[in-house]
Amino acid sequence: MNKSIQFDAAGRLRHFLTIDGLNRKLLVRIMDVAESFSSVTEQQVKKVPLLRGKTIVNLFFENSTRTRNTFELAAKRLSADVLNVNIANSATSKGESLLDTIRNIEAMHVDMFVVRHEASGAAHFIARHVAPHISVVNAGDGSHSHPTQAMLDMFTIRQCKGDFSKLKVAIVGDILHSRVARSEILALNTLGAAEVRVVAPKTLLPADVSGLGVNVFHDLDQGLSGVDVIVMLRLQKERMSGAFLPSEHEYFTYFGLTGERLAKANPNAIVMHPGPINRGVEIDSRVADGPQSVILQQVGNGIAVRMAVMSMVLGSHGVANVGAAS
Amino acid sequence: MNKSIQFDAAGRLRHFLTIDGLNRKLLVRIMDVAESFSSVTEQQVKKVPLLRGKTIVNLFFENSTRTRNTFELAAKRLSADVLNVNIANSATSKGESLLDTIRNIEAMHVDMFVVRHEASGAAHFIARHVAPHISVVNAGDGSHSHPTQAMLDMFTIRQCKGDFSKLKVAIVGDILHSRVARSEILALNTLGAAEVRVVAPKTLLPADVSGLGVNVFHDLDQGLSGVDVIVMLRLQKERMSGAFLPSEHEYFTYFGLTGERLAKANPNAIVMHPGPINRGVEIDSRVADGPQSVILQQVGNGIAVRMAVMSMVLGSHGVANVGAAS
Amino acid sequence: MNKSIQFDAAGRLRHFLTIDGLNRKLLVRIMDVAESFSSVTEQQVKKVPLLRGKTIVNLFFENSTRTRNTFELAAKRLSADVLNVNIANSATSKGESLLDTIRNIEAMHVDMFVVRHEASGAAHFIARHVAPHISVVNAGDGSHSHPTQAMLDMFTIRQCKGDFSKLKVAIVGDILHSRVARSEILALNTLGAAEVRVVAPKTLLPADVSGLGVNVFHDLDQGLSGVDVIVMLRLQKERMSGAFLPSEHEYFTYFGLTGERLAKANPNAIVMHPGPINRGVEIDSRVADGPQSVILQQVGNGIAVRMAVMSMVLGSHGVANVGAAS
Repeated sequence: MNKSIQFDAAGRLRHFLTIDGLNRKLLVRIMDVAESFSSVTEQQVKKVPLLRGKTIVNLFFENSTRTRNTFELAAKRLSADVLNVNIANSATSKGESLLDTIRNIEAMHVDMFVVRHEASGAAHFIARHVAPHISVVNAGDGSHSHPTQAMLDMFTIRQCKGDFSKLKVAIVGDILHSRVARSEILALNTLGAAEVRVVAPKTLLPADVSGLGVNVFHDLDQGLSGVDVIVMLRLQKERMSGAFLPSEHEYFTYFGLTGERLAKANPNAIVMHPGPINRGVEIDSRVADGPQSVILQQVGNGIAVRMAVMSMVLGSHGVANVGAAS
Repeated sequence: MNKSIQFDAAGRLRHFLTIDGLNRKLLVRIMDVAESFSSVTEQQVKKVPLLRGKTIVNLFFENSTRTRNTFELAAKRLSADVLNVNIANSATSKGESLLDTIRNIEAMHVDMFVVRHEASGAAHFIARHVAPHISVVNAGDGSHSHPTQAMLDMFTIRQCKGDFSKLKVAIVGDILHSRVARSEILALNTLGAAEVRVVAPKTLLPADVSGLGVNVFHDLDQGLSGVDVIVMLRLQKERMSGAFLPSEHEYFTYFGLTGERLAKANPNAIVMHPGPINRGVEIDSRVADGPQSVILQQVGNGIAVRMAVMSMVLGSHGVANVGAAS
Repeated sequence: MNKSIQFDAAGRLRHFLTIDGLNRKLLVRIMDVAESFSSVTEQQVKKVPLLRGKTIVNLFFENSTRTRNTFELAAKRLSADVLNVNIANSATSKGESLLDTIRNIEAMHVDMFVVRHEASGAAHFIARHVAPHISVVNAGDGSHSHPTQAMLDMFTIRQCKGDFSKLKVAIVGDILHSRVARSEILALNTLGAAEVRVVAPKTLLPADVSGLGVNVFHDLDQGLSGVDVIVMLRLQKERMSGAFLPSEHEYFTYFGLTGERLAKANPNAIVMHPGPINRGVEIDSRVADGPQSVILQQVGNGIAVRMAVMSMVLGSHGVANVGAAS
């Protein structure tokens, strides 16, 4: 895929589709802007007029109430108008093509599409075809990419740990099907994390895992040994009873994060999860609700990071001079 | 249930869950604030900036378009941002617990949950578990409580009749299953109504009815004799063909409000109903649309009363010194 | 139907239900106001405060995501509050009558109903019964009328062609079931188009077609000969396999707009379609996406025209002295 599609001719961020192709400076810039919005969400009046009069369309082909809610709140706190388009009920069900749907909504003078789609590459496809004044933000496409989730995780790690260069990070669970895992590995490597590990059974690892710049572990105790950050992935229920895994119970026995296992990591390691969590499947409740968990902090940071990305792609933050990866 | 949960340490109203435990002074204050908003809804610009930058979440576990609409309009007229969360489609259907759903949404830096739930006590449960900066407003929980409906009815009675101390009020219909009836009886007694009557067949009365501070009637003509206010309850269709009632027709014959029956009440008695009405079941159309009906006035008052409650629990009206019942 | 219902006692536009009964001056005024809003939608801040504090209710009894989106965006760009009421889920499904639903929502101090209904005359019915301060805009009723669609088409024609008095316009397709066709014929004749043609198979023409002020063609090549504007209608899928038409393929063979057929029209003729288009059924993709197509321009104009109508019926544009047709 052509990564430069994310930038305009002047090298400014126009779309936000994937971490791939973004350099360290830009990722840091996103976190810095998010930091400035973090204080906004703690004010009495949680609104800034940056995107007043802009129209942001939530184009969700796949149901994800939580992600849509955070994008909707982020847009409203930037004072934008939000249009939620439920594709299942829309003209596409009258036989209209995706491209005709996009063309029609963009003709309504909208400024941004936030796209969630079950097919990998859908956000890129739309970005390649939209009118020049429109930005596309990827809110998750198939098993490919979920870049705002990756950035809110990076932002949370920075809040808790500061410098990335000394951090060992373990990502645990269904790496194979996880758009979150792919985006996080890219972001962590770009930000210069000391070591990125993936911990998973062989059936839940992609074939090209060795090329991702990670160390692979099949044993959880070994994988967590001495790490500073643990990212647990959600186990999709549909994987549990099939070719991939024998059972929920079996999975928890080998890959569930318990207090005992957490003790293998550094004493001040943080525990992350993109949510919603399956208690007793990938994570024990005492760990999820325990002092090392930053799972709810991630949710709050999700708003700030999405406000940052939305305001940057619509050019309201003057991101000039922040170029693409060389 | 612990009633003091509705107040913060300084004795200010923080949640609005039930009429139980609220004193006369506070109920009068709610009506006074509602009165001030009443004029807002009749202005050209029906908006005040009181809750600008606040985020109000409509958390409806039970479908009720009408109640949600009035809360949504009330919030928008206070300039708040509104997020409608349809629980049926949300993460709870992915197996997430209610508490995890609540924790996640509150982590988005929201300020208020408006909760509608089919289980009695749901709003209290949520109020006991939310973060300190969040307020909960009960929009109806099971057969337990519907306090904003009770307050809009009190407000409507005050508009029409003034002083409560001379009023005889009859509440007619399915007292057993009605959250509205329970909340109204409490409010009327707290406001010092001269007499509160309930009129119902024995199968639709709760066992503890004698402890509610009401006079019980099983005959409609007797129950209406000399009253100033008649509150008709909605008969849920699912009660009509079962153990509770022989038939719709039978019910109307004995408990339906006709013009003839209305004549038993005081000549200037008002007729109320929380809506939606079942014409020809609990009320005759000529009465529902007649000069003594204030049913539509109740709807409009619903917005003003909800604006009052929302602004009070979010502390924008300086309700200090208005304490709980002793 | 009584057309004067669209005007108040002072002759000002109060409802917008049908083109029938509107004079040339008023149609021109709508286009002039839309022109002024056209520039708004191209500004950085696409908002004007004209309807701030007004509440507009989208009352859609029939699903039409696209039309609802354009009304919702138009309302938001006028700074109004929008309430979307999904009738399928609302109190009407609890057995409440349409009139009770309307009475209840109007009691919430709303200012406008935008009505879409599968029954012809529904918007008129509601307009006859709403409170004096409420305006009704018809967003499509059965096969009767779709006046904002007609006006956005007129506005698009004026943008492209200027003067109506020299224009030959062909409307092609299912005239019988089309509310768009009826409204357009009225508008074109009121604006003084030189010739209005309808082109359709006999089974898709209404019995009273001769009384509509059009020339009827059953052959597409003849119908398009020398015209300046071609309005293609959407063919409803349910018409295709029944008494009306033998097949999609057959329809396209005789009435589909191809490049070859388009060549029969004037060289600078424009091609219009209300959308969503059925590619390869009523129109060839090369024509739909070709240089003479103004289909997407229509969509954008839909916002401006709806902003115009909404602001005019709510009296914000001073439309005094623009009376009804004599």
